[in-house]
Amino acid sequence: MPEIAYVNGQFLPLEHATVHVEDRGFQFADGVYEVVRTYGGKAFATDEHVARLLRSLDAIELRIPLDAARVRSLIDEGIRRAGFGEAVVYLQITRGRAPRHRGMPRNAEPTVVMTVRELPSRAARLREDGIAVITVPEFRWARCDVKSIALLPSILAYHAAKKQNAGDAVFVEADGSVNESTAGNVFVVAGGRLRTPPKSPRILAGVTRDKILVAARETGLETAEERITKAELYAADEMFLTNTTTEIMPVVAVDGKPIGAGKTGPVSVRIYDQFARLFIRA
Amino acid sequence: MPEIAYVNGQFLPLEHATVHVEDRGFQFADGVYEVVRTYGGKAFATDEHVARLLRSLDAIELRIPLDAARVRSLIDEGIRRAGFGEAVVYLQITRGRAPRHRGMPRNAEPTVVMTVRELPSRAARLREDGIAVITVPEFRWARCDVKSIALLPSILAYHAAKKQNAGDAVFVEADGSVNESTAGNVFVVAGGRLRTPPKSPRILAGVTRDKILVAARETGLETAEERITKAELYAADEMFLTNTTTEIMPVVAVDGKPIGAGKTGPVSVRIYDQFARLFIRA
Repeated sequence: MPEIAYVNGQFLPLEHATVHVEDRGFQFADGVYEVVRTYGGKAFATDEHVARLLRSLDAIELRIPLDAARVRSLIDEGIRRAGFGEAVVYLQITRGRAPRHRGMPRNAEPTVVMTVRELPSRAARLREDGIAVITVPEFRWARCDVKSIALLPSILAYHAAKKQNAGDAVFVEADGSVNESTAGNVFVVAGGRLRTPPKSPRILAGVTRDKILVAARETGLETAEERITKAELYAADEMFLTNTTTEIMPVVAVDGKPIGAGKTGPVSVRIYDQFARLFIRA
Repeated sequence: MPEIAYVNGQFLPLEHATVHVEDRGFQFADGVYEVVRTYGGKAFATDEHVARLLRSLDAIELRIPLDAARVRSLIDEGIRRAGFGEAVVYLQITRGRAPRHRGMPRNAEPTVVMTVRELPSRAARLREDGIAVITVPEFRWARCDVKSIALLPSILAYHAAKKQNAGDAVFVEADGSVNESTAGNVFVVAGGRLRTPPKSPRILAGVTRDKILVAARETGLETAEERITKAELYAADEMFLTNTTTEIMPVVAVDGKPIGAGKTGPVSVRIYDQFARLFIRA
């Protein structure tokens, strides 16, 4: 089955999907995006993703001629046309094409691009081996709550992790505060509580993050959205990252130091099972 | 005369110049750029621009199959083919096309894009009216010495300036240190000295910046590359911004407060005249 794309009103094979070199997404990272996945072939948490997309667009003052309902139906149409068992939808909106100038163009038409790829069916169980992560000094811009395509800092941090045989990098402020990883929110289990950094301009308000907090409370666990320090990462009983496509990714080592028993912990498994029960359509 | 572009080995009309939607420049801002201008139809300071391009590429670990000489000849060829009296060349290199993933792809071919546009011939005199600027808290990433295409923060800051009827925004650290504007290095004249912030990861090492320092010293002015605070901007006798296309842009007000006499100052004019004498081929 061919991977498909949508560019400005038209579905076409991914192979043929192009944008102009003066698209502001290409020259200025002047755009935002969302990633939506399916469970059982149906888009998951589309309302939350589309609401966040509209918040991101608003933050960069990019007005589009589509409302939330139209964006949702576009995502659904992409999934339907692609016809995969499970799919991941990537939706990107930029300020469109204009002769290169840093001023926002008055009359450019926003560029709307969507790609749909096959997603391997979800494993029924949380992976046991987890990943190691490194910490890196926070060096991204100060508005990481906006899901912008200006992702070069995350590319470099992720690459730094790979060079150290780790699976991701976690951004830490100069004062020791943990923000998030290059593609996920950070959670720790410590003293029988589940903790994650509070929403702020320094982290993305993850859709999965919020659902994990709900699931954790349903298991009877106390949760707290509060500052976490790097020292507290090292001392955690368990740690994991969350995002749309990997759901929960256990972290078994930070900067070479094992977390807890150095493998996926029981509380993480319990939360994952509850997350699946609550939110995932079979 | 049609505006032209170059995309991966081929010259073509700008109108037809496209890249794939999965180009990493479009999805991740995973690329860098340079802007080169002509004087008298010849590319100016190409050695410096190409050297900086190679430093930017190195900083993001992007290896290209072109050496400095080949990049310089590509720029020259673009200028020659376009045939404008004066031209501005925009050269962008990205990590190429790969299925979307934040990991750096192993086998992607870098994307090399160049556009050539007509540049109005340079005015013989420094403009007298100058521009007003605003200051904004620094909120970009911490590696602004890399000329990356992740420019969304600058787009937003420039737009904030426009909304306040100003012509640019200057980024200021929490401790009051002035970095640079959205597209230029900052200079102040105070106490008979010309001052500009030192090179650091927070500012781009401007090609024009360095030449302005040389020109200023040739006029007998003392120059200093040292920290400048926002309070010192307000108190400056004269202020200007520098970049490749505008050369020197006088600043006559900061945050609504007039700088010096509120118009282009005599020292700025003297430096500009010396810059023209030293560096510009007629």
